[in-house]
Amino acid sequence: MSHAGRVVIYGGRGALGSKCVAHFKAQNFWVGSIDLHENTEADLNILVEKDAEVENQESAILGSVSKALNGSKLDAIICVAGGWAGGNASKDLIKNSDLMWKQSVWSSLISSAMAAGHLKDGGLLALTGAKAALDPTPGMMGYGMAKAAVHHLVKSLAGDKSGMPPQSTVVAILPVTLDTPMNRKWMASADFTAWTPLEFVAQTFLEWTKNENRPENGSLCQLLTEKSVTKIVTS
Amino acid sequence: MSHAGRVVIYGGRGALGSKCVAHFKAQNFWVGSIDLHENTEADLNILVEKDAEVENQESAILGSVSKALNGSKLDAIICVAGGWAGGNASKDLIKNSDLMWKQSVWSSLISSAMAAGHLKDGGLLALTGAKAALDPTPGMMGYGMAKAAVHHLVKSLAGDKSGMPPQSTVVAILPVTLDTPMNRKWMASADFTAWTPLEFVAQTFLEWTKNENRPENGSLCQLLTEKSVTKIVTS
Repeated sequence: MSHAGRVVIYGGRGALGSKCVAHFKAQNFWVGSIDLHENTEADLNILVEKDAEVENQESAILGSVSKALNGSKLDAIICVAGGWAGGNASKDLIKNSDLMWKQSVWSSLISSAMAAGHLKDGGLLALTGAKAALDPTPGMMGYGMAKAAVHHLVKSLAGDKSGMPPQSTVVAILPVTLDTPMNRKWMASADFTAWTPLEFVAQTFLEWTKNENRPENGSLCQLLTEKSVTKIVTS
Repeated sequence: MSHAGRVVIYGGRGALGSKCVAHFKAQNFWVGSIDLHENTEADLNILVEKDAEVENQESAILGSVSKALNGSKLDAIICVAGGWAGGNASKDLIKNSDLMWKQSVWSSLISSAMAAGHLKDGGLLALTGAKAALDPTPGMMGYGMAKAAVHHLVKSLAGDKSGMPPQSTVVAILPVTLDTPMNRKWMASADFTAWTPLEFVAQTFLEWTKNENRPENGSLCQLLTEKSVTKIVTS
């Protein structure tokens, strides 16, 4: 076998996604990237048509994955696509909620459908929630609602007869703030030692994929960083 | 004043919505109905364009409401629009999730935006969740996810600086099974005495609108019916 395993990173060109692609490649994994833009490090690139309806996105993406795998199965599907928008009920509620749904939930749903069809028995599906959405989010209403939906999806996927492969594990990471270049740019005066390093997240995904320290099926995994040390608290 | 107050029923032509329109009309309320189809009992009908994008639906609906109210405010906005679809991750996940989002969440969001702009201080916004979505829903994944999103929205709308009018109350009803003609048709052998009568729900909305027995802001109100008696359990 010429590689250590096969993973797909949904959002493989974003800050965290790029780190994941590089990290898995360094460990000799075959890596597929799904994104609006190409990641030249990946073995396979599937480009998302941003303005297409979700069912069309799904059929295009799953068709490409199916063709590339040619009957092989994936060790892990990791969805780190998403976005952020603020706003309460009195300003751009519908616009922002629609955008958050498309960015966070569509990608999570397509990853879940991919897992039902192409993840190996005992494989890993990791989605991205948000710690903030464990509580009400009046100042970022659409964002919190979309992430709460992702949390519920994880719990459902971990349930009985969910359609997931036997012995597979579904989890979500719930970041507070990731230490990305964009966050450093927009919150330049923040305390970066309270932000979660991307390396830590990529390494965590790698371990979970290799079934090391893997959380229980259905876990929501808060990434809590203090003085540059991150601990994972599951619920 | 020629009427007891003003309410809008979103989904005013459905089984529960029609009952609400009739119940409020019988109490001399001015009633607006928003639905795909006209409710001839209502004082105002706003027809939803089913295939329009959500932002276009919003601007059309809010424009019509604004024009009809002409500066007056609403006592209550009651959203009972919605639908149901089963299915796990391996069958029609994206299609069903998309449909559930449009039926339950779009209507809830437009109602929320309407509340931010047109509900009076101390008014009521009531949305429709589902008791089932308090737990994982592996066999009706899109439905549970959409309803979990509605639950989160209610909590956010009840939060600080949510954009809702002062002293207003946002709640969701969380039915188990409503005693509708369609449910009787499709589940003909079920125990109907465990289903919640529509009259009870309509009367409950009326009381809450008049600020009688109104639950705390942000309450998720389970409607639990046993031997034809319904109790409301809030969380």
